[in-house]
Amino acid sequence: MANFEVLAFDVFGTVVDWYGSVKQEVAATLPGVDADKFTLAWRAGYGPAMQRVMSGELGWTLIDDLHRMILDELLVAVQAPALDEAGRRHLNRVWHRLAPWPDSVEGLTRLRTRYTICTLSNGNLGLLADMAKRSGLPWDLILSAEVFGKYKPDPDTYLGVARVFDIEPDRVMLVAAHHNDLAAARNCGLGSAYIERPLEFGPDNIKDVSPVAENTFHANSLIHLAELLGC
Amino acid sequence: MANFEVLAFDVFGTVVDWYGSVKQEVAATLPGVDADKFTLAWRAGYGPAMQRVMSGELGWTLIDDLHRMILDELLVAVQAPALDEAGRRHLNRVWHRLAPWPDSVEGLTRLRTRYTICTLSNGNLGLLADMAKRSGLPWDLILSAEVFGKYKPDPDTYLGVARVFDIEPDRVMLVAAHHNDLAAARNCGLGSAYIERPLEFGPDNIKDVSPVAENTFHANSLIHLAELLGC
Repeated sequence: MANFEVLAFDVFGTVVDWYGSVKQEVAATLPGVDADKFTLAWRAGYGPAMQRVMSGELGWTLIDDLHRMILDELLVAVQAPALDEAGRRHLNRVWHRLAPWPDSVEGLTRLRTRYTICTLSNGNLGLLADMAKRSGLPWDLILSAEVFGKYKPDPDTYLGVARVFDIEPDRVMLVAAHHNDLAAARNCGLGSAYIERPLEFGPDNIKDVSPVAENTFHANSLIHLAELLGC
Repeated sequence: MANFEVLAFDVFGTVVDWYGSVKQEVAATLPGVDADKFTLAWRAGYGPAMQRVMSGELGWTLIDDLHRMILDELLVAVQAPALDEAGRRHLNRVWHRLAPWPDSVEGLTRLRTRYTICTLSNGNLGLLADMAKRSGLPWDLILSAEVFGKYKPDPDTYLGVARVFDIEPDRVMLVAAHHNDLAAARNCGLGSAYIERPLEFGPDNIKDVSPVAENTFHANSLIHLAELLGC
Protein backbone atom coordinates (compact mmCIF):
# COMPACT_ATOMS: atom_id res chain seq x y z
CA MET A 1 0.00 0.00 0.00
CA ALA A 2 1.43 3.36 -1.02
CA ASN A 3 2.33 5.74 1.75
CA PHE A 4 -0.37 8.37 1.29
CA GLU A 5 -0.52 11.36 3.65
CA VAL A 6 -3.36 13.37 2.15
CA LEU A 7 -6.70 12.19 0.78
CA ALA A 8 -8.33 14.78 -1.51
CA PHE A 9 -12.03 14.30 -2.14
CA ASP A 10 -14.21 15.17 -5.05
CA VAL A 11 -17.45 16.37 -3.43
CA PHE A 12 -20.48 16.57 -5.77
CA GLY A 13 -21.64 12.98 -6.27
CA THR A 14 -18.78 11.48 -4.27
CA VAL A 15 -19.47 12.87 -0.78
CA VAL A 16 -22.90 14.46 -1.25
CA ASP A 17 -26.05 13.47 -3.14
CA TRP A 18 -26.64 16.42 -5.45
CA TYR A 19 -29.46 14.68 -7.33
CA GLY A 20 -31.63 13.91 -4.32
CA SER A 21 -31.09 17.26 -2.60
CA VAL A 22 -31.65 19.42 -5.66
CA LYS A 23 -34.64 17.44 -6.89
CA GLN A 24 -36.39 17.78 -3.55
CA GLU A 25 -36.03 21.56 -3.45
CA VAL A 26 -36.90 21.97 -7.12
CA ALA A 27 -40.10 19.97 -6.59
CA ALA A 28 -41.04 22.11 -3.59
CA THR A 29 -40.17 25.42 -5.27
CA LEU A 30 -41.48 24.80 -8.78
CA PRO A 31 -44.67 22.73 -8.61
CA GLY A 32 -45.70 21.45 -12.02
CA VAL A 33 -42.11 21.31 -13.26
CA ASP A 34 -40.56 17.88 -13.87
CA ALA A 35 -38.07 17.98 -10.99
CA ASP A 36 -36.11 14.97 -12.20
CA LYS A 37 -35.50 16.46 -15.64
CA PHE A 38 -34.88 19.93 -14.25
CA THR A 39 -32.27 18.62 -11.80
CA LEU A 40 -30.45 16.57 -14.43
CA ALA A 41 -30.47 19.51 -16.86
CA TRP A 42 -29.13 21.88 -14.19
CA ARG A 43 -26.24 19.54 -13.46
CA ALA A 44 -25.66 18.81 -17.15
CA GLY A 45 -25.20 22.53 -17.78
CA TYR A 46 -22.29 22.72 -15.39
CA GLY A 47 -19.65 20.97 -17.52
CA PRO A 48 -20.20 23.16 -20.59
CA ALA A 49 -20.33 26.28 -18.40
CA MET A 50 -16.95 25.41 -16.84
CA GLN A 51 -15.63 24.69 -20.31
CA ARG A 52 -16.51 28.26 -21.32
CA VAL A 53 -14.37 29.46 -18.40
CA MET A 54 -11.47 27.14 -19.17
CA SER A 55 -11.51 28.07 -22.85
CA GLY A 56 -11.27 31.74 -21.96
CA GLU A 57 -14.68 32.61 -23.44
CA LEU A 58 -15.75 33.59 -19.91
CA GLY A 59 -13.40 35.12 -17.35
CA TRP A 60 -12.91 33.32 -14.04
CA THR A 61 -16.41 32.59 -12.74
CA LEU A 62 -17.36 30.80 -9.53
CA ILE A 63 -19.64 27.77 -9.59
CA ASP A 64 -22.31 29.72 -7.69
CA ASP A 65 -22.47 32.13 -10.62
CA LEU A 66 -22.36 29.39 -13.25
CA HIS A 67 -25.21 27.59 -11.45
CA ARG A 68 -27.20 30.83 -11.50
CA MET A 69 -26.66 31.39 -15.24
CA ILE A 70 -27.88 27.85 -15.95
CA LEU A 71 -30.83 28.24 -13.57
CA ASP A 72 -32.00 31.43 -15.24
CA GLU A 73 -31.90 29.72 -18.64
CA LEU A 74 -33.77 26.67 -17.34
CA LEU A 75 -36.50 28.78 -15.77
CA VAL A 76 -37.17 30.31 -19.17
CA ALA A 77 -37.05 26.90 -20.84
CA VAL A 78 -39.65 25.39 -18.49
CA GLN A 79 -41.77 28.54 -18.67
CA ALA A 80 -41.42 29.25 -14.96
CA PRO A 81 -39.85 32.71 -15.16
CA ALA A 82 -42.05 34.09 -12.39
CA LEU A 83 -39.67 33.05 -9.60
CA ASP A 84 -38.43 36.33 -8.15
CA GLU A 85 -34.86 37.36 -7.39
CA ALA A 86 -34.96 36.26 -3.75
CA GLY A 87 -36.48 32.94 -4.78
CA ARG A 88 -33.87 32.38 -7.47
CA ARG A 89 -31.06 33.26 -5.11
CA HIS A 90 -32.38 30.87 -2.48
CA LEU A 91 -32.94 28.04 -4.96
CA ASN A 92 -29.48 28.56 -6.45
CA ARG A 93 -27.97 28.08 -3.02
CA VAL A 94 -29.48 24.58 -2.83
CA TRP A 95 -25.99 23.54 -3.98
CA HIS A 96 -24.75 24.77 -0.57
CA ARG A 97 -27.32 22.50 1.10
CA LEU A 98 -26.56 19.16 -0.55
CA ALA A 99 -26.92 16.27 1.87
CA PRO A 100 -24.09 13.78 2.40
CA TRP A 101 -24.53 10.15 1.40
CA PRO A 102 -25.37 8.08 4.50
CA ASP A 103 -21.81 6.74 4.84
CA SER A 104 -19.95 10.02 4.26
CA VAL A 105 -19.64 11.56 7.73
CA GLU A 106 -18.65 8.27 9.39
CA GLY A 107 -16.29 7.35 6.57
CA LEU A 108 -14.55 10.74 6.59
CA THR A 109 -14.33 10.75 10.37
CA ARG A 110 -12.58 7.39 10.31
CA LEU A 111 -10.27 8.31 7.43
CA ARG A 112 -9.32 11.53 9.20
CA THR A 113 -7.83 9.60 12.10
CA ARG A 114 -4.97 8.45 9.87
CA TYR A 115 -4.90 10.92 6.97
CA THR A 116 -5.23 14.63 6.35
CA ILE A 117 -8.50 14.94 4.45
CA CYS A 118 -9.33 17.84 2.16
CA THR A 119 -11.77 18.66 -0.57
CA LEU A 120 -10.64 19.11 -4.16
CA SER A 121 -13.83 20.36 -5.71
CA ASN A 122 -14.82 22.70 -8.48
CA GLY A 123 -17.34 24.15 -6.00
CA ASN A 124 -16.40 27.53 -4.56
CA LEU A 125 -15.05 27.97 -1.04
CA GLY A 126 -18.19 29.54 0.41
CA LEU A 127 -20.35 26.76 -0.98
CA LEU A 128 -18.09 24.04 0.40
CA ALA A 129 -17.82 25.73 3.81
CA ASP A 130 -21.59 26.13 4.11
CA MET A 131 -22.10 22.50 3.13
CA ALA A 132 -19.52 21.23 5.60
CA LYS A 133 -20.88 23.30 8.48
CA ARG A 134 -24.44 22.22 7.78
CA SER A 135 -23.65 18.51 7.56
CA GLY A 136 -20.64 18.09 9.85
CA LEU A 137 -18.19 17.07 7.14
CA PRO A 138 -14.93 17.07 9.12
CA TRP A 139 -12.47 18.46 6.54
CA ASP A 140 -8.97 19.34 7.66
CA LEU A 141 -8.83 21.79 4.76
CA ILE A 142 -11.28 22.96 2.11
CA LEU A 143 -9.52 23.29 -1.24
CA SER A 144 -11.31 24.39 -4.35
CA ALA A 145 -10.74 25.35 -7.95
CA GLU A 146 -11.22 28.86 -6.52
CA VAL A 147 -7.83 28.57 -4.78
CA PHE A 148 -6.02 27.50 -7.94
CA GLY A 149 -7.87 29.63 -10.48
CA LYS A 150 -8.41 26.51 -12.61
CA TYR A 151 -11.13 23.90 -12.80
CA LYS A 152 -10.54 20.17 -12.66
CA PRO A 153 -9.31 18.34 -14.69
CA ASP A 154 -6.58 20.99 -15.06
CA PRO A 155 -3.32 19.49 -13.69
CA ASP A 156 -2.75 22.63 -11.58
CA THR A 157 -5.60 21.53 -9.32
CA TYR A 158 -4.24 18.03 -8.54
CA LEU A 159 -0.65 19.23 -8.29
CA GLY A 160 -1.90 22.16 -6.24
CA VAL A 161 -2.93 19.83 -3.41
CA ALA A 162 0.62 18.45 -3.22
CA ARG A 163 2.06 21.97 -3.36
CA VAL A 164 -0.19 23.25 -0.56
CA PHE A 165 0.99 20.46 1.72
CA ASP A 166 4.59 20.63 0.41
CA ILE A 167 4.68 16.91 -0.39
CA GLU A 168 5.26 14.85 -3.53
CA PRO A 169 2.17 14.14 -5.67
CA ASP A 170 2.43 10.41 -4.96
CA ARG A 171 1.68 11.11 -1.28
CA VAL A 172 -1.76 12.38 -2.30
CA MET A 173 -4.72 10.20 -3.33
CA LEU A 174 -7.83 11.56 -5.03
CA VAL A 175 -11.10 9.97 -3.93
CA ALA A 176 -13.91 10.34 -6.46
CA ALA A 177 -16.95 8.69 -8.01
CA HIS A 178 -15.82 9.65 -11.52
CA HIS A 179 -13.22 7.74 -13.52
CA ASN A 180 -12.24 10.75 -15.65
CA ASP A 181 -11.37 12.81 -12.56
CA LEU A 182 -9.34 9.91 -11.19
CA ALA A 183 -7.53 9.37 -14.50
CA ALA A 184 -6.51 13.04 -14.59
CA ALA A 185 -5.22 12.76 -11.02
CA ARG A 186 -3.20 9.64 -11.88
CA ASN A 187 -1.66 11.45 -14.84
CA CYS A 188 -0.30 13.94 -12.30
CA GLY A 189 1.18 11.16 -10.16
CA LEU A 190 -1.56 10.96 -7.51
CA GLY A 191 -3.15 7.75 -6.28
CA SER A 192 -6.83 7.20 -7.13
CA ALA A 193 -9.71 5.66 -5.17
CA TYR A 194 -13.03 5.08 -6.89
CA ILE A 195 -16.24 5.21 -4.86
CA GLU A 196 -19.37 3.52 -6.24
CA ARG A 197 -22.31 5.91 -6.32
CA PRO A 198 -24.83 4.07 -8.53
CA LEU A 199 -27.60 6.52 -7.53
CA GLU A 200 -25.69 9.68 -8.45
CA PHE A 201 -28.14 10.48 -11.24
CA GLY A 202 -31.21 9.18 -9.44
CA PRO A 203 -33.00 5.84 -9.26
CA ASP A 204 -34.11 5.97 -12.90
CA ASN A 205 -30.57 6.41 -14.22
CA ILE A 206 -28.46 3.83 -12.45
CA LYS A 207 -24.80 4.58 -13.10
CA ASP A 208 -22.32 1.92 -14.22
CA VAL A 209 -19.91 1.58 -11.29
CA SER A 210 -17.66 -1.08 -12.77
CA PRO A 211 -14.06 -1.07 -11.59
CA VAL A 212 -11.24 0.29 -13.71
CA ALA A 213 -8.02 -1.63 -13.15
CA GLU A 214 -5.82 1.48 -13.01
CA ASN A 215 -7.39 2.78 -9.78
CA THR A 216 -5.42 2.24 -6.59
CA PHE A 217 -8.60 1.39 -4.64
CA HIS A 218 -12.24 0.61 -5.47
CA ALA A 219 -14.82 0.89 -2.68
CA ASN A 220 -18.59 0.87 -2.41
CA SER A 221 -18.68 3.63 0.23
CA LEU A 222 -16.38 5.89 2.23
CA ILE A 223 -16.74 3.50 5.16
CA HIS A 224 -15.56 0.71 2.88
CA LEU A 225 -12.58 2.86 1.83
CA ALA A 226 -11.76 3.45 5.50
CA GLU A 227 -11.79 -0.33 6.02
CA LEU A 228 -9.55 -0.89 3.00
CA LEU A 229 -7.10 1.67 4.39
CA GLY A 230 -7.16 0.15 7.87
CA CYS A 231 -8.90 3.10 9.54
CA MET B 1 -25.07 44.45 18.44
CA ALA B 2 -24.32 44.33 14.74
CA ASN B 3 -25.62 41.38 12.83
CA PHE B 4 -22.38 39.55 12.10
CA GLU B 5 -22.45 36.22 10.25
CA VAL B 6 -18.77 35.45 9.89
CA LEU B 7 -15.95 35.86 12.41
CA ALA B 8 -12.53 35.92 10.75
CA PHE B 9 -9.57 35.28 13.06
CA ASP B 10 -6.02 36.41 12.96
CA VAL B 11 -4.05 33.36 14.10
CA PHE B 12 -0.42 34.03 15.16
CA GLY B 13 -0.61 35.63 18.60
CA THR B 14 -4.41 35.78 18.63
CA VAL B 15 -5.31 32.06 18.61
CA VAL B 16 -1.91 30.44 19.11
CA ASP B 17 1.12 31.25 21.27
CA TRP B 18 3.95 31.54 18.75
CA TYR B 19 6.44 32.80 21.33
CA GLY B 20 6.10 29.91 23.76
CA SER B 21 5.99 27.19 21.10
CA VAL B 22 8.91 28.47 19.05
CA LYS B 23 11.10 29.26 22.04
CA GLN B 24 10.66 25.75 23.43
CA GLU B 25 11.73 24.07 20.19
CA VAL B 26 14.58 26.52 19.59
CA ALA B 27 15.92 25.82 23.07
CA ALA B 28 15.75 22.06 22.47
CA THR B 29 17.27 22.22 18.98
CA LEU B 30 19.96 24.86 19.49
CA PRO B 31 21.49 24.48 22.96
CA GLY B 32 23.67 27.43 23.85
CA VAL B 33 21.63 29.84 21.74
CA ASP B 34 19.53 32.49 23.54
CA ALA B 35 16.11 31.04 22.66
CA ASP B 36 14.20 34.14 23.77
CA LYS B 37 16.21 36.46 21.52
CA PHE B 38 16.26 33.97 18.66
CA THR B 39 12.47 33.56 18.78
CA LEU B 40 11.81 37.29 18.88
CA ALA B 41 14.25 37.90 16.02
CA TRP B 42 12.66 35.17 13.90
CA ARG B 43 9.24 36.72 14.36
CA ALA B 44 10.58 40.25 13.87
CA GLY B 45 11.96 39.23 10.49
CA TYR B 46 8.53 38.30 9.21
CA GLY B 47 7.10 41.79 8.72
CA PRO B 48 10.04 43.07 6.64
CA ALA B 49 10.06 39.82 4.62
CA MET B 50 6.35 40.22 3.78
CA GLN B 51 7.03 43.84 2.93
CA ARG B 52 9.56 42.68 0.33
CA VAL B 53 6.79 40.59 -1.23
CA MET B 54 4.20 43.36 -1.10
CA SER B 55 6.62 45.89 -2.60
CA GLY B 56 7.30 43.55 -5.51
CA GLU B 57 10.97 43.08 -4.64
CA LEU B 58 10.19 39.39 -4.11
CA GLY B 59 7.59 37.47 -6.13
CA TRP B 60 4.72 35.83 -4.26
CA THR B 61 6.34 33.82 -1.46
CA LEU B 62 4.59 31.68 1.17
CA ILE B 63 5.22 32.28 4.86
CA ASP B 64 6.87 28.85 5.13
CA ASP B 65 9.49 30.05 2.68
CA LEU B 66 9.86 33.48 4.30
CA HIS B 67 10.32 31.79 7.69
CA ARG B 68 13.03 29.60 6.16
CA MET B 69 14.89 32.55 4.65
CA ILE B 70 14.91 34.29 8.04
CA LEU B 71 15.92 31.10 9.84
CA ASP B 72 18.91 30.55 7.56
CA GLU B 73 20.09 34.13 8.20
CA LEU B 74 19.63 33.77 11.96
CA LEU B 75 21.58 30.51 12.08
CA VAL B 76 24.53 32.31 10.52
CA ALA B 77 24.09 35.27 12.87
CA VAL B 78 24.17 33.10 16.00
CA GLN B 79 27.03 31.02 14.60
CA ALA B 80 24.99 27.82 14.59
CA PRO B 81 25.19 26.97 10.89
CA ALA B 82 25.82 23.27 11.55
CA LEU B 83 22.11 22.41 11.66
CA ASP B 84 21.61 20.21 8.60
CA GLU B 85 18.90 20.44 5.96
CA ALA B 86 16.55 17.97 7.66
CA GLY B 87 17.01 19.76 10.97
CA ARG B 88 16.34 23.16 9.42
CA ARG B 89 13.28 21.89 7.64
CA HIS B 90 11.93 20.38 10.84
CA LEU B 91 12.66 23.48 12.93
CA ASN B 92 11.10 25.73 10.29
CA ARG B 93 7.90 23.75 10.56
CA VAL B 94 7.62 24.64 14.25
CA TRP B 95 5.27 27.33 12.93
CA HIS B 96 2.90 24.48 11.95
CA ARG B 97 3.06 23.22 15.53
CA LEU B 98 2.19 26.37 17.48
CA ALA B 99 0.03 25.59 20.52
CA PRO B 100 -3.30 27.36 21.07
CA TRP B 101 -3.76 29.68 24.04
CA PRO B 102 -5.61 27.79 26.81
CA ASP B 103 -8.94 29.47 25.98
CA SER B 104 -8.79 29.11 22.20
CA VAL B 105 -10.38 25.73 21.50
CA GLU B 106 -13.24 26.25 23.94
CA GLY B 107 -13.80 29.84 22.80
CA LEU B 108 -13.85 28.92 19.10
CA THR B 109 -16.09 25.94 19.73
CA ARG B 110 -18.62 28.18 21.49
CA LEU B 111 -18.40 30.95 18.87
CA ARG B 112 -18.90 28.39 16.13
CA THR B 113 -22.33 27.48 17.45
CA ARG B 114 -23.65 30.87 16.34
CA TYR B 115 -21.19 32.11 13.71
CA THR B 116 -19.24 30.80 10.78
CA ILE B 117 -15.63 30.96 11.93
CA CYS B 118 -12.67 31.18 9.58
CA THR B 119 -9.04 32.11 9.70
CA LEU B 120 -7.73 35.20 7.99
CA SER B 121 -4.02 34.71 8.42
CA ASN B 122 -0.88 35.50 6.52
CA GLY B 123 0.15 31.92 7.24
CA ASN B 124 -0.09 29.54 4.30
CA LEU B 125 -2.87 27.00 3.90
CA GLY B 126 -0.76 23.94 4.66
CA LEU B 127 0.61 25.55 7.82
CA LEU B 128 -2.86 26.51 9.05
CA ALA B 129 -4.32 23.08 8.24
CA ASP B 130 -1.52 21.25 10.05
CA MET B 131 -1.94 23.54 13.06
CA ALA B 132 -5.72 23.06 13.18
CA LYS B 133 -5.52 19.28 12.85
CA ARG B 134 -2.86 19.02 15.54
CA SER B 135 -4.72 21.20 18.06
CA GLY B 136 -8.38 20.65 17.19
CA LEU B 137 -9.09 24.23 16.10
CA PRO B 138 -12.63 23.84 14.71
CA TRP B 139 -12.51 26.20 11.70
CA ASP B 140 -15.42 26.19 9.28
CA LEU B 141 -13.02 27.45 6.63
CA ILE B 142 -9.30 28.15 6.51
CA LEU B 143 -8.63 31.37 4.59
CA SER B 144 -5.17 32.70 4.04
CA ALA B 145 -3.24 35.38 2.23
CA GLU B 146 -2.37 32.44 -0.05
CA VAL B 147 -5.98 32.43 -1.33
CA PHE B 148 -5.98 36.14 -2.11
CA GLY B 149 -2.38 36.52 -3.32
CA LYS B 150 -1.96 39.47 -0.95
CA TYR B 151 -0.81 39.82 2.63
CA LYS B 152 -2.71 41.64 5.35
CA PRO B 153 -3.17 44.56 5.72
CA ASP B 154 -4.02 44.66 2.00
CA PRO B 155 -7.76 45.45 1.68
CA ASP B 156 -8.20 42.52 -0.73
CA THR B 157 -7.73 40.15 2.19
CA TYR B 158 -10.47 41.62 4.42
CA LEU B 159 -12.83 42.20 1.53
CA GLY B 160 -11.95 38.74 0.27
CA VAL B 161 -13.62 37.15 3.30
CA ALA B 162 -16.89 38.93 2.49
CA ARG B 163 -16.58 37.98 -1.17
CA VAL B 164 -15.96 34.30 -0.40
CA PHE B 165 -19.15 34.16 1.67
CA ASP B 166 -21.05 36.48 -0.71
CA ILE B 167 -22.05 38.87 2.08
CA GLU B 168 -21.51 42.56 2.76
CA PRO B 169 -18.28 43.47 4.62
CA ASP B 170 -20.26 44.70 7.64
CA ARG B 171 -21.47 41.13 8.24
CA VAL B 172 -17.86 40.09 8.90
CA MET B 173 -15.89 40.82 12.08
CA LEU B 174 -12.14 40.43 12.36
CA VAL B 175 -10.89 39.05 15.68
CA ALA B 176 -7.25 39.87 16.41
CA ALA B 177 -4.74 40.74 19.10
CA HIS B 178 -3.28 43.56 16.99
CA HIS B 179 -4.82 47.01 16.70
CA ASN B 180 -3.26 47.72 13.28
CA ASP B 181 -4.84 44.60 11.78
CA LEU B 182 -8.21 45.58 13.27
CA ALA B 183 -7.94 49.16 12.02
CA ALA B 184 -7.27 47.95 8.48
CA ALA B 185 -10.33 45.69 8.71
CA ARG B 186 -12.51 48.55 9.96
CA ASN B 187 -11.34 50.68 7.04
CA CYS B 188 -12.85 48.01 4.79
CA GLY B 189 -16.16 48.08 6.66
CA LEU B 190 -15.67 45.03 8.86
CA GLY B 191 -16.34 44.88 12.59
CA SER B 192 -13.33 44.49 14.90
CA ALA B 193 -12.83 42.53 18.13
CA TYR B 194 -9.62 42.96 20.09
CA ILE B 195 -8.29 40.07 22.18
CA GLU B 196 -5.84 40.80 24.99
CA ARG B 197 -2.70 38.68 24.68
CA PRO B 198 -0.29 40.34 27.09
CA LEU B 199 2.13 37.39 26.85
CA GLU B 200 2.39 37.41 23.06
CA PHE B 201 6.07 38.38 23.19
CA GLY B 202 6.87 36.37 26.30
CA PRO B 203 6.87 37.08 30.03
CA ASP B 204 9.77 39.54 29.80
CA ASN B 205 8.03 41.74 27.23
CA ILE B 206 4.49 42.28 28.51
CA LYS B 207 2.40 43.82 25.74
CA ASP B 208 0.20 46.86 26.30
CA VAL B 209 -3.33 45.56 25.82
CA SER B 210 -5.18 48.82 26.43
CA PRO B 211 -8.52 49.18 24.67
CA VAL B 212 -8.96 51.31 21.57
CA ALA B 213 -12.38 52.93 21.43
CA GLU B 214 -12.93 52.21 17.75
CA ASN B 215 -13.08 48.44 18.23
CA THR B 216 -16.51 46.83 18.25
CA PHE B 217 -15.54 44.47 21.09
CA HIS B 218 -12.66 44.14 23.55
CA ALA B 219 -12.17 40.81 25.33
CA ASN B 220 -9.51 39.21 27.49
CA SER B 221 -9.88 35.77 25.84
CA LEU B 222 -11.87 33.98 23.16
CA ILE B 223 -14.10 32.56 25.88
CA HIS B 224 -14.76 36.13 27.01
CA LEU B 225 -15.60 37.10 23.42
CA ALA B 226 -18.03 34.17 23.25
CA GLU B 227 -19.69 35.47 26.42
CA LEU B 228 -19.91 39.00 25.01
CA LEU B 229 -21.55 37.60 21.87
CA GLY B 230 -24.00 35.45 23.84
CA CYS B 231 -22.53 32.12 22.77
